Amino acid sequence: MLKVSPLAPQCFPDVKPVSGLSLTVLRSEERYKSRNDVLIAVLSEGTTSAAVFTCSLTPGAPVIWSREVHALNTARAMIVTAGNANVCTGKQGQANTQAIAAATAKLGGLKTKQVFVSSTGVIGEQLDVKRILDSLPAHLNPEFEQQDWLASASAILTTDTFAKASSASIELWGEMVTISGIAKGSGMIEPNMATMLSYIFTDARIDSDTLQLMLNKAVDKSFNCITVDSDTSTSDTCLVFATGRAGPPISAIDSSDGGLFYATLEKLTMDLAQQVIRDGEGAQKFITVKVSGATSDQAAKIIAKCIANSPLVKTAIAGEDANWGRIVMAVGKAGQAINFEALRVSMGGVVIAEGDGPVEGYDEALVQAHIEGRYVDIDVDVGLGENGHATIWTCDLTHGYIEINADYRS
Amino acid sequence: MLKVSPLAPQCFPDVKPVSGLSLTVLRSEERYKSRNDVLIAVLSEGTTSAAVFTCSLTPGAPVIWSREVHALNTARAMIVTAGNANVCTGKQGQANTQAIAAATAKLGGLKTKQVFVSSTGVIGEQLDVKRILDSLPAHLNPEFEQQDWLASASAILTTDTFAKASSASIELWGEMVTISGIAKGSGMIEPNMATMLSYIFTDARIDSDTLQLMLNKAVDKSFNCITVDSDTSTSDTCLVFATGRAGPPISAIDSSDGGLFYATLEKLTMDLAQQVIRDGEGAQKFITVKVSGATSDQAAKIIAKCIANSPLVKTAIAGEDANWGRIVMAVGKAGQAINFEALRVSMGGVVIAEGDGPVEGYDEALVQAHIEGRYVDIDVDVGLGENGHATIWTCDLTHGYIEINADYRS
Repeated sequence: MLKVSPLAPQCFPDVKPVSGLSLTVLRSEERYKSRNDVLIAVLSEGTTSAAVFTCSLTPGAPVIWSREVHALNTARAMIVTAGNANVCTGKQGQANTQAIAAATAKLGGLKTKQVFVSSTGVIGEQLDVKRILDSLPAHLNPEFEQQDWLASASAILTTDTFAKASSASIELWGEMVTISGIAKGSGMIEPNMATMLSYIFTDARIDSDTLQLMLNKAVDKSFNCITVDSDTSTSDTCLVFATGRAGPPISAIDSSDGGLFYATLEKLTMDLAQQVIRDGEGAQKFITVKVSGATSDQAAKIIAKCIANSPLVKTAIAGEDANWGRIVMAVGKAGQAINFEALRVSMGGVVIAEGDGPVEGYDEALVQAHIEGRYVDIDVDVGLGENGHATIWTCDLTHGYIEINADYRS
Repeated sequence: MLKVSPLAPQCFPDVKPVSGLSLTVLRSEERYKSRNDVLIAVLSEGTTSAAVFTCSLTPGAPVIWSREVHALNTARAMIVTAGNANVCTGKQGQANTQAIAAATAKLGGLKTKQVFVSSTGVIGEQLDVKRILDSLPAHLNPEFEQQDWLASASAILTTDTFAKASSASIELWGEMVTISGIAKGSGMIEPNMATMLSYIFTDARIDSDTLQLMLNKAVDKSFNCITVDSDTSTSDTCLVFATGRAGPPISAIDSSDGGLFYATLEKLTMDLAQQVIRDGEGAQKFITVKVSGATSDQAAKIIAKCIANSPLVKTAIAGEDANWGRIVMAVGKAGQAINFEALRVSMGGVVIAEGDGPVEGYDEALVQAHIEGRYVDIDVDVGLGENGHATIWTCDLTHGYIEINADYRS
């Protein structure tokens, strides 16, 4: 059993219920014994949805399946299984995913292609699908509105050390609208146009096109701005369901209701994404990398990711060594335009280097105290005087990462 | 003191002398105490040279200086200092490099701009240049032909655990022509169009244009095909000097003499590059990643580097876990064209996955025995039936890497 990350939140958050949603957790013992490892969500009629998946060119069978479900735009349920990712498992893997979808659909009186499927865990092994099918209950009804959020967020975990959830309510036209979501992720985290696994539910009334637009934008600001180890998962999936049970119709991101809803969604995805970093494999420090002064936001993001992914930067921070030269190295290898002679590097708000050399007499003790804390801030101005900027969240690289990953499968 | 890498060669190789070259090692105590930390090479009149430097956009002062020396094409000496890389040190750093070049030039009766300078070690600290200048001898003459190769290869090391050299002789027109070289490198190794530090000397008669062409080509096949940790150094430098004391004039890579000389040079750079991997920080295993069937050699190289740089692949191998699913993951994130349904993954020559799924009944015991050895071979055919292929050498990611890098500067 892994020790809980020192960056874990004090307690599981208060997650508000979402009308028209029922969550069920099950124990299949497909891989993990003595814990729940299956989560099913069933949603009421009229629910809309949006989805983002991994850009990996070797996606898992569940991702291939869920893309088809998404294209039909009639999804009413999802099932998530933990322990085996069902990736690189060929035709058999695809048949297994479809069998899981079919069985889940039957329980809710739905069509097979109305059920999203996600699986997470080891790559390259066939699922013991019988165990999963045998664990399913006889019937599921979204109107039960059974919602044990801690159990649900826990059922989808693999190497994670704590359950991740976030929730918010806003008032629209005098009615409360709620968004509640869960996520999992700890290693193989550099989501590319998607996240590890995250499922968000709202009772808002919102058409699927608008919801998709909002999800794309929010993911780009949140899940696509985190990295634990530069490895992109084959299973990355982020789903949002809107049951339409509360509030006025939302049909545009730039309406006042739409703007408020979007801002809330973005905040929630950021919270979930940051929780993934807090649970980064072996993480002891939460690192925020801000890059500014670049030619574009995209250029700033590439530079910030180069810093956040550098093993030498990450190990220096693990060792509480403010070795800022490694930050300069990472900026140099990013291949994006910079003005080296006006480059500014700060840690914990203290400017350490400016104009391609160290700042004489900068307060090294202050920087040292900062880096000995749990939260480390790196700010780099690349000196071009342009507006491009980006923020990336990451964690340090410690012995814990090696321990977890040198002996995960066996 | 670091333990010698288990991948180190049994002994330092027999390095053949190069006519017209004198090597001098010195002890400046600039950073390291009780060891030689300065190497000077002086070459006879008529020497030609070629050079390749880091593509980093934050290069060190010695790289900026040496580019100018290279452009003038009259170099006759080089000085390498170990312990402090003199990077991100602004105008003062540049003045320090120039002072070192000037003092070295004086000893050999040369002009300042005839002296290449390299420095390796910590980034962002000013050199104690006085110590280096004070350590210099009164006079240097290439005709002394003093060549202690082990001492020379040792004087340029930082976190390396063994001295790296390679040497070869070929017969051209009845005369022996020799190439002998040294290298250093252990961490911050993903050279980009250059290597960490490597200095190669030959007595061949070869014009600088032809030499440069050969060096570019050899570096692309050797130093640009290795990675320890995906971090590109700000100091990467590879120099070749040809004193012209032996053999016939070589003026083209495609002549028979030129072809033989080039083949020998390429083999030598490959040997040195692989020695850098054998001394990768914390390395316990030497990994060869071959990718074939890609649309181009460049595409194959990108995919092979994605595998070689993946922390999850590297930690799995450290743990002797043949977790080939992570290899598939790394292929998937590379962003290069593949045919997932015809992808073939082998380890130790055993085909493990083929056609997007595991091969039924493959010999897992054989793969396990292979991964428990010191040398691990990963072969991936991306299934497109094209000719693009590449080989990349890397090492595993172990606790040793964390130990070395979480406490390097302090």
